[in-house]
Amino acid sequence: MIHTPYLLFLGDAPDQLAAKVAQGIRDWRPENAVGQFRMEGCKADVGLTDMTLAEAKAAGAKTLVIGVANRGGMISQAWKKVLIQALEEGFDLASGLHNLLRNEPDLVAVAEATGRTLHDVRVPTVVYPIANGKKRSGKRLLAVGTDCSVGKMYTALAIDHSMREAGMKSSFRATGQTGILITGEGVPLDAVIADFMAGSVEWLTPDNEDDHWDIIEGQGSIFHVSYSGVTMALIHGGQPDALILSHEPTRTHMRGLPDYGMPTLEAVRDTALALAQVANPSCQVVGISINTQHMSEDEAMTYMAEVEERMGLPTVDPFRQGADRLVEALKAL
Amino acid sequence: MIHTPYLLFLGDAPDQLAAKVAQGIRDWRPENAVGQFRMEGCKADVGLTDMTLAEAKAAGAKTLVIGVANRGGMISQAWKKVLIQALEEGFDLASGLHNLLRNEPDLVAVAEATGRTLHDVRVPTVVYPIANGKKRSGKRLLAVGTDCSVGKMYTALAIDHSMREAGMKSSFRATGQTGILITGEGVPLDAVIADFMAGSVEWLTPDNEDDHWDIIEGQGSIFHVSYSGVTMALIHGGQPDALILSHEPTRTHMRGLPDYGMPTLEAVRDTALALAQVANPSCQVVGISINTQHMSEDEAMTYMAEVEERMGLPTVDPFRQGADRLVEALKAL
Repeated sequence: MIHTPYLLFLGDAPDQLAAKVAQGIRDWRPENAVGQFRMEGCKADVGLTDMTLAEAKAAGAKTLVIGVANRGGMISQAWKKVLIQALEEGFDLASGLHNLLRNEPDLVAVAEATGRTLHDVRVPTVVYPIANGKKRSGKRLLAVGTDCSVGKMYTALAIDHSMREAGMKSSFRATGQTGILITGEGVPLDAVIADFMAGSVEWLTPDNEDDHWDIIEGQGSIFHVSYSGVTMALIHGGQPDALILSHEPTRTHMRGLPDYGMPTLEAVRDTALALAQVANPSCQVVGISINTQHMSEDEAMTYMAEVEERMGLPTVDPFRQGADRLVEALKAL
Repeated sequence: MIHTPYLLFLGDAPDQLAAKVAQGIRDWRPENAVGQFRMEGCKADVGLTDMTLAEAKAAGAKTLVIGVANRGGMISQAWKKVLIQALEEGFDLASGLHNLLRNEPDLVAVAEATGRTLHDVRVPTVVYPIANGKKRSGKRLLAVGTDCSVGKMYTALAIDHSMREAGMKSSFRATGQTGILITGEGVPLDAVIADFMAGSVEWLTPDNEDDHWDIIEGQGSIFHVSYSGVTMALIHGGQPDALILSHEPTRTHMRGLPDYGMPTLEAVRDTALALAQVANPSCQVVGISINTQHMSEDEAMTYMAEVEERMGLPTVDPFRQGADRLVEALKAL
């Protein structure tokens, strides 16, 4: 568990997109960030107050979160001066980069000397159990996609947000690097050892109040041959009561797999639901989220109306429209 | 890759069942074992010549394989004397036990001093790629089960054996500890990191001659909520041309999951085939293997005739009948 609130490190981000982790924290857990730290030449701005390390410390920040991705996931020497100073001023560091903080000898040495913690959220720190499949109390929702990167995390965060706004009990359960940094906790599922994947999802979504919803971040796709095993573990370990189908309509083939066409929403519905009902026979598909970022407003609305008619399920783009209609469908379960 | 031939270490096995790894090597790769080593009080015998370390060395043995399982997977002190002497006499050691050879400081020290290798086949030693889903040349078969431990490895080894007897080109591809020790190579799939599972199966079953068959050892079950992610990675990473369904008819619930009933063969056929056709649209289900060890001969024959009639697929118990009928079905593909 990463101590909040954060100071968001944007470094020398070459553009706004490079700061998407920081933007995610800003969008979904603004209460977790006191400000942003930008180096000279930084081209990103997530709209928080620019702060020095000392100002952020005075504002209560406990962890400097690397909210920016470099080419190749590197921890550049240009950053090191700031990171080391942050440790010395009493910040923990947290990163989801491919290259680990713990593999940088200077950071390790200073963290040890100052008693601070280096959080590499790509690496599991828990010994997860093997899944036992026992029915858990509370409710769970999982977003399943036609493909990777079609908006499953965004959908889950938007549903969690709408639920809280509506006074419902909800926890977003992160299963990837960005989600873990946003909420400060979760399971880096793609780095878990095969035998413990489903168990790690059970661990992440334990018994809860009967009217509490875990909104579980999806990963991969049951139709994506590189990552389908991870998706499968989420479907069985998550024991969902409800599935949301997520789709990006302009994609012409599976991400990273040029020879693989996209599955239909019907195929994902039928396959994922049948598998989910092994672990939870009462699971239902309750709605559809469409990522329409590459469509005009008109195109998007026409497309979603058509999908809603065809599938008989509430269909929204949570980014354009919010997730309230999906939450209404969940309430009706 | 473990150097063959082996001397099979049966230690102080309390009964025959404890030596099932050694028995598997003896049954399926007799050319890989020059003899067996039994300590005083050993209650197992796999029917090989009893040899001292020196006799085995003279007979050409290169690796002492721990062919026996202890309660808790321990490497007992009683064994250590033999293991250390084996290292000193020039044997490598190989083990599939839960407790690792590499975590025993005395074994590590002697292996280093003598220049020998400790093989813990539970632990991956390869950096596997992420699966790319590209169509590979050659043919592949995968056994998929209604449950864990229903005879998938036995079925795969029996098919591989029948194919070789028939002069066909075949490689058994091990995905678990016992299979790896039997053949001297493979992927310990349950210990692979989630993101690389399917890639490790692609690595294990590379491009091959058009008339060559990889017979891939199955793991888990798509209906077993603890391990279904591993099964999924085999179905997509293995890109099978043919599936065999494996079943144990007397089981009343999923192994280790008392609240989960067994799926029907029809459910496994339909679910696994649809998922396999994502990676290989021409995949077919070609036959059924039944583990009838808990049935009388009459019961077994009646049951299998009924399944064959119902499913319209050749149905055999490879242990009672061999796998020739399954191989005939593969030839007809």
